[in-house]
Amino acid sequence: MKFCSQCAAPVSLITPEGDTKARFVCSTCYTIHYQNPKVVTGCLVTHQGKVLLCKRAIEPRYGLWTVPAGFMENRETLEEAACRETLEEAEARVEQVELYAVFSLSQISQVYVLFKSELSAPFNYGAGIESLEVALFAEHEIPWGELAFPIVRKVLEYYFHDRKQGVYPVHYADIYRDE
Amino acid sequence: MKFCSQCAAPVSLITPEGDTKARFVCSTCYTIHYQNPKVVTGCLVTHQGKVLLCKRAIEPRYGLWTVPAGFMENRETLEEAACRETLEEAEARVEQVELYAVFSLSQISQVYVLFKSELSAPFNYGAGIESLEVALFAEHEIPWGELAFPIVRKVLEYYFHDRKQGVYPVHYADIYRDE
Repeated sequence: MKFCSQCAAPVSLITPEGDTKARFVCSTCYTIHYQNPKVVTGCLVTHQGKVLLCKRAIEPRYGLWTVPAGFMENRETLEEAACRETLEEAEARVEQVELYAVFSLSQISQVYVLFKSELSAPFNYGAGIESLEVALFAEHEIPWGELAFPIVRKVLEYYFHDRKQGVYPVHYADIYRDE
Repeated sequence: MKFCSQCAAPVSLITPEGDTKARFVCSTCYTIHYQNPKVVTGCLVTHQGKVLLCKRAIEPRYGLWTVPAGFMENRETLEEAACRETLEEAEARVEQVELYAVFSLSQISQVYVLFKSELSAPFNYGAGIESLEVALFAEHEIPWGELAFPIVRKVLEYYFHDRKQGVYPVHYADIYRDE
């Protein structure tokens, strides 16, 4: 950030009075421009014990597998955003949508909120514009070496573990990536 | 938003090619300025079945009671942010911090993430700069008519219900306010 989005004057990185962190503050109108973490939300889509994964057609992690997920938009709920992303990236409609995993990715200032869901009849899915390929995987078919993000591995581990127990508690974890 | 934070040229609200929503786009450098929901996080602090509430010393809802919570900052985890807010607003240190409630407030583009926690020994607390007063309330002492936000009522209802059952599942709800 270089200029004030309200008045176009240059901003400086300073700690406002009464604050503890440096912020971009306008040199002219004194607007404080806060920057906050972004929310990514999506669905772990299941069908007969298999999980729907999307092969990414976009960077980062082009060609690797992920769950359908993306940035939450203003004026939508987490669940609406998760289902929208699932429809966009995997062309899948889902039901029995339940909160399943919340992840903090502090290094990249993101929060992930994932919902467990069942693929709706007639069990259609397909590659949306951001996916090269979309497929259902049983546990032994998961491409563990070709997953796009640490959170994908984590939520799959939770799911196949919980499925054996028959209970699906909501999980919370902090995820760190080697830098 | 009126001006581009990268180059100071005016922005227009247009739908970029391949997108489905209107965004602020720079007329000169074509930077797309996405705007996304903000995350508010905090703690439901409990001690011997009582709950810690803060009387707000700031707008909005000056003088009404809330749980310690505030905007998550970049580079922190949800739990770190929740504990920081609890220390700032209620001067309370907590332990046994566990994810407890996730709320979507789509009307105001916010996500709330609240953790259940126990007040740490020696059980100190006090009014931080944003609070007029901080106190522990048993269920029959809760000022139900003077709560600051619908999410405060909701999380208190969850807690006193769950306490009777002796189990504390993670809750998810969409919260709508009369407009």
